[in-house]
Amino acid sequence: MTTAQLISEIKKKQSFLCIGLDVDLNKIPQYLLQEEDPIFAFNKAIIDATHHLCVAYKPNTAFYEAYGLKGWKALEKTINYLNDKHPEIFTIADAKRGDIGNTSSMYAKAFFEDLAFDSVTVAPYMGKDSVEPFLAFKDKHTILLALTSNQGAFDFQTKTVGDKELYKQVLETSKTWHNAENLMYVVGATKAEFLEDIRQIIPNSFLLVPGVGAQGGNLQDVCKYGMNANVGLLINSSRGIIYASNKEDFVNAAAEKAKDIQIVMQSILSSR
Amino acid sequence: MTTAQLISEIKKKQSFLCIGLDVDLNKIPQYLLQEEDPIFAFNKAIIDATHHLCVAYKPNTAFYEAYGLKGWKALEKTINYLNDKHPEIFTIADAKRGDIGNTSSMYAKAFFEDLAFDSVTVAPYMGKDSVEPFLAFKDKHTILLALTSNQGAFDFQTKTVGDKELYKQVLETSKTWHNAENLMYVVGATKAEFLEDIRQIIPNSFLLVPGVGAQGGNLQDVCKYGMNANVGLLINSSRGIIYASNKEDFVNAAAEKAKDIQIVMQSILSSR
Repeated sequence: MTTAQLISEIKKKQSFLCIGLDVDLNKIPQYLLQEEDPIFAFNKAIIDATHHLCVAYKPNTAFYEAYGLKGWKALEKTINYLNDKHPEIFTIADAKRGDIGNTSSMYAKAFFEDLAFDSVTVAPYMGKDSVEPFLAFKDKHTILLALTSNQGAFDFQTKTVGDKELYKQVLETSKTWHNAENLMYVVGATKAEFLEDIRQIIPNSFLLVPGVGAQGGNLQDVCKYGMNANVGLLINSSRGIIYASNKEDFVNAAAEKAKDIQIVMQSILSSR
Repeated sequence: MTTAQLISEIKKKQSFLCIGLDVDLNKIPQYLLQEEDPIFAFNKAIIDATHHLCVAYKPNTAFYEAYGLKGWKALEKTINYLNDKHPEIFTIADAKRGDIGNTSSMYAKAFFEDLAFDSVTVAPYMGKDSVEPFLAFKDKHTILLALTSNQGAFDFQTKTVGDKELYKQVLETSKTWHNAENLMYVVGATKAEFLEDIRQIIPNSFLLVPGVGAQGGNLQDVCKYGMNANVGLLINSSRGIIYASNKEDFVNAAAEKAKDIQIVMQSILSSR
């Protein structure tokens, strides 16, 4: 999917919501465990009920790998279902990969070709040649970790390197990489005030913002400091939506939570 | 596996060689493609021919994920084969994972429980709470990226943060984490002279050293600067061993290359 198509969907749906599909078998309605593939059954139900309210879905690979082969199969079925039934949806493999060049090429092949996601999250620690193999794919997007939403972000990311914090150094340096126009960035919502500085460095890039809801970030603040002329934001919510209920009404409960967020987004978009 | 058991195996085999199982279907002998599971068939043949010459195997997950479900299944069969037939071998999932706390717990479950590896490589960018969920597993080891063997290591890892380079800051900070005794570190062999400084910070930890061979590192230099009283080194070679030949003699060719390295290691160990 091109960035222009994503922007067009955001305008059409009046939403820049991304729903995180982080499926924990201990948290889903327990009657689903009788299904042949409970993870996919849960994802399909969530997708069917919410796809008109969001523009992106983001399965975190950890939750699938934890269930081994069955988990990987459920991930494959989920991305295939999204690509078949909802090609207008932007898909994110939240995998936080990154390795030396020839190995990153294999990860890129895994997520862009074998699983056919539109984008993948990548860690910056190993530098340019660990990220560029992902950037080489046309109409695919590499979402680089910049400033994450967890407490550990303050261990290294906010430490000063030369004249600026490490995460700003990551943003600056990444702009010089080949095919940098295929970059988006992860910026945690728990640090909304940082977004003003971030927009000085990368005014035009899309930001994937986790941490609204469960992790305490505020949607209004994120939009105030982070939105650009093309919206430029994908706000992720995972647990707050998919685990709104663990009973038979989980589908409606998830749709209601997604609708609540979409309404706020619509109001923010129309008041610009 | 405990660290003491690993040290005992190193002394017994007079080897601290780790063989990287990075299987690329374009590089293995092409007649193996007729096998039901060519990746596992290749790994099994390599393991059968080399297990007495090395103390560890390290499949890099990228090479398995690139083949989707079939790849993940081959990874599962490989680790199960190692655990069943060669429980004395130290197994490393080279996965370079790392995410917010509850998500890192799922990765730890994937690699330490579902796949039952002895260790996993983890990226430090997201800090303490992204690594500690791995450290919580008893007799399992978390191998933290410190200084990698690629050119991109100079983009961020060697930049000065406060009064020291970022990779040294990672080493220092990680020592304060809960269950830090379960940490090992990735240090690239292409930067052997850095090992002297690194040993000042972490004198006792095991180092996983990639980049000997294909990436240009020198075994003698790495040992000179990096070895400690318990050896404290696992030297990885992947392509140099497993792709020594792509013909019917690939098993013997791999064993010969592994034997060449083991002989040098034995001579280094006996001259201490």
